[in-house]
Amino acid sequence: MRIDAALIERRLDELYAIGAQPDGGAYRPLYGAAWAAAGERVEGWMKDAGLKTYRDAVGNIWGRAGGDGKSIVTGSHIDTVRHGGRLDGALGIVAGLTAVESLRKAKGKPRRPLEVVAICEEEGSRFRANFWGSRAITGTIDRVDPEVAAAMRERGLDPARIATAARDDIDTFVELHIEQGAVLESSGTPLAVVTAIVGTAQLEVTVTGQPDHAGTTPMDLRRDALAGAGGMVQAIESIAKSLGKPAVATVGKLAVEPDQINVVPGTVVFTVDLRHSDLSGRRALEERIRSLCTTISQERQLGLAIRTLQEKPPVAMHADVRAILARAAKDCGVQAAEMVSGAGHDAQVLAARCKVGMLFVPSIGGRSHCPDEATDPAHLVLGTQVLARALQLLAY
Amino acid sequence: MRIDAALIERRLDELYAIGAQPDGGAYRPLYGAAWAAAGERVEGWMKDAGLKTYRDAVGNIWGRAGGDGKSIVTGSHIDTVRHGGRLDGALGIVAGLTAVESLRKAKGKPRRPLEVVAICEEEGSRFRANFWGSRAITGTIDRVDPEVAAAMRERGLDPARIATAARDDIDTFVELHIEQGAVLESSGTPLAVVTAIVGTAQLEVTVTGQPDHAGTTPMDLRRDALAGAGGMVQAIESIAKSLGKPAVATVGKLAVEPDQINVVPGTVVFTVDLRHSDLSGRRALEERIRSLCTTISQERQLGLAIRTLQEKPPVAMHADVRAILARAAKDCGVQAAEMVSGAGHDAQVLAARCKVGMLFVPSIGGRSHCPDEATDPAHLVLGTQVLARALQLLAY
Repeated sequence: MRIDAALIERRLDELYAIGAQPDGGAYRPLYGAAWAAAGERVEGWMKDAGLKTYRDAVGNIWGRAGGDGKSIVTGSHIDTVRHGGRLDGALGIVAGLTAVESLRKAKGKPRRPLEVVAICEEEGSRFRANFWGSRAITGTIDRVDPEVAAAMRERGLDPARIATAARDDIDTFVELHIEQGAVLESSGTPLAVVTAIVGTAQLEVTVTGQPDHAGTTPMDLRRDALAGAGGMVQAIESIAKSLGKPAVATVGKLAVEPDQINVVPGTVVFTVDLRHSDLSGRRALEERIRSLCTTISQERQLGLAIRTLQEKPPVAMHADVRAILARAAKDCGVQAAEMVSGAGHDAQVLAARCKVGMLFVPSIGGRSHCPDEATDPAHLVLGTQVLARALQLLAY
Repeated sequence: MRIDAALIERRLDELYAIGAQPDGGAYRPLYGAAWAAAGERVEGWMKDAGLKTYRDAVGNIWGRAGGDGKSIVTGSHIDTVRHGGRLDGALGIVAGLTAVESLRKAKGKPRRPLEVVAICEEEGSRFRANFWGSRAITGTIDRVDPEVAAAMRERGLDPARIATAARDDIDTFVELHIEQGAVLESSGTPLAVVTAIVGTAQLEVTVTGQPDHAGTTPMDLRRDALAGAGGMVQAIESIAKSLGKPAVATVGKLAVEPDQINVVPGTVVFTVDLRHSDLSGRRALEERIRSLCTTISQERQLGLAIRTLQEKPPVAMHADVRAILARAAKDCGVQAAEMVSGAGHDAQVLAARCKVGMLFVPSIGGRSHCPDEATDPAHLVLGTQVLARALQLLAY
């Protein structure tokens, strides 16, 4: 099927220009002005493509083409992180719309309902409301923060109606996304079928020693919280490496108290983000990290407190959808790799209510969530072609 | 010689009450209201003790008793850090005054001029003006920050007259101070003669890696600045330990960029404070630290930049003064230990113009620069007795 490469690039450019930041990248926070403008642009494209559009109670925008029974849906989120790139979210909407448009031109009305969705929020772009759009679709929003409710009302959306956004008539959701890492690029693979989205646990570790004068306290009389935390940071890296792929563990935040040049650190608080595609693998990772941090703190007579900030189980992509995506790739003349997604995606939420699957195209240099987020245009076209073929297999 | 223990405690209490902070400790910043009130109290005590007082151009307060030739001086600084304790600085003034008072009562007029000084500033308590008082005494202030000049004028001091505070008629300066560490306490020693004040170098180390997504970047594709910095923090500790006493090295400040829970750290900036009583020892410490940080950064393909923020050579106490202090201790029936001061003191500045020496008494739990700074009252009396005996040996 012919995919209009120039149209994809032009639409991505248009979206990227909405919410462009003076210091680089775009920012389209949930219910903000740029978010609203981008939604209108997408709805316009949907209408031009002959889709019947509607907005649900949280502001997800749907564009639907004929057929009976449960829907086949494709799309992605329209919000971005601060200084976000050109592709994260935007690609899934643009590619989905372009694929459906091409399919309808080439094959006419689908047998089943075929829908493109611009999901209102996935990134936690403005509020601590990650997966706001997909949680509304699955009917799993149980409380609305007053700030979010106020922002909804400003956009003419009624928080009391959120439950009406829930859908039980979706058969399958498929999304094309950039990898956001360098695995595909470094192995020279143009496309991957996602097998699972990793489970994440986020921990907060507090190491307590004794703040002392940096000049008057000999090395052997110190209880230096940062020297202990330094050992833990290294141990956490070693554990993730030794467990092997797809285990990852990251100490991303670290703060020192009193943080003075001439005072031995008394307290260090750091975070650990740990991920694995397999729940038992993630638990093994966490157990080893807890155990080694305990050992290091005991050796050094430091206090240790570990708190779980967040815990999300891994989510497997549906076997049927994986098979269809692999077949679609083959039909397009490419052997797709299989890989685990290290990042979270709406599919992990939607999996509770429908079959889900994802395709990844490579990220140049693995860059994402920043202005240099980019993908070879040929890979964008290939991804859209495979997506279109998969939608054809599912809906026609 | 009889030392009035109750008088020492009462005077320390009075000074501690001046500038007392609602949340603990005292704060007497240079040229502030509490600083001025404390100076008046000390000048009153000096007058009551029959000393002839005068204030120099920067606000050092001197109390002088008879005699000819170059002066024997004792005292300490009157400013404090924020939430400072009861003894740092205050003890040297109170003990010096009490010693001189006792001597004059017991022995009459000294052969040489005997002076007690309340040095206006040592702590960098308000401006980046550390050793302001002793630098004025040694005539080594070469520029006056406009902020400091304005604060001086508010206290009726003329910045244009700073040079007049310089003295070339001091023979010897001796000071009693708390150790501010736990070395004496942990070895059960009641008193030490200081042999040298350590040299300090302060470095700023910048480690540059690559900020990456914590979920999508496998461990083997990361250049994690914090994992590298963690190794450096540990190595710095190990190097100082392996060089042995009195080498100390402290990573006191550390900041992570972008400091986000789900982003691999791209940049880490940390400080190293390193001290040794011997210049070659300090240089060896610094060289080993630079070398190991370089090795770690190269191993991990991280960028590394090391900048020297400050460098102060070690200062030896004068051999004659050390001998007199040791003899004075013996005369008072105690065998003084010898130790290196890990903290800076006015003596290191005054050493450029006169003979200097210092006595340390133990700090309970090694605590200092905080409200729980304390010393056994018996140790305060012992220190004052030995100081008085040394002043007698020097001035009578």
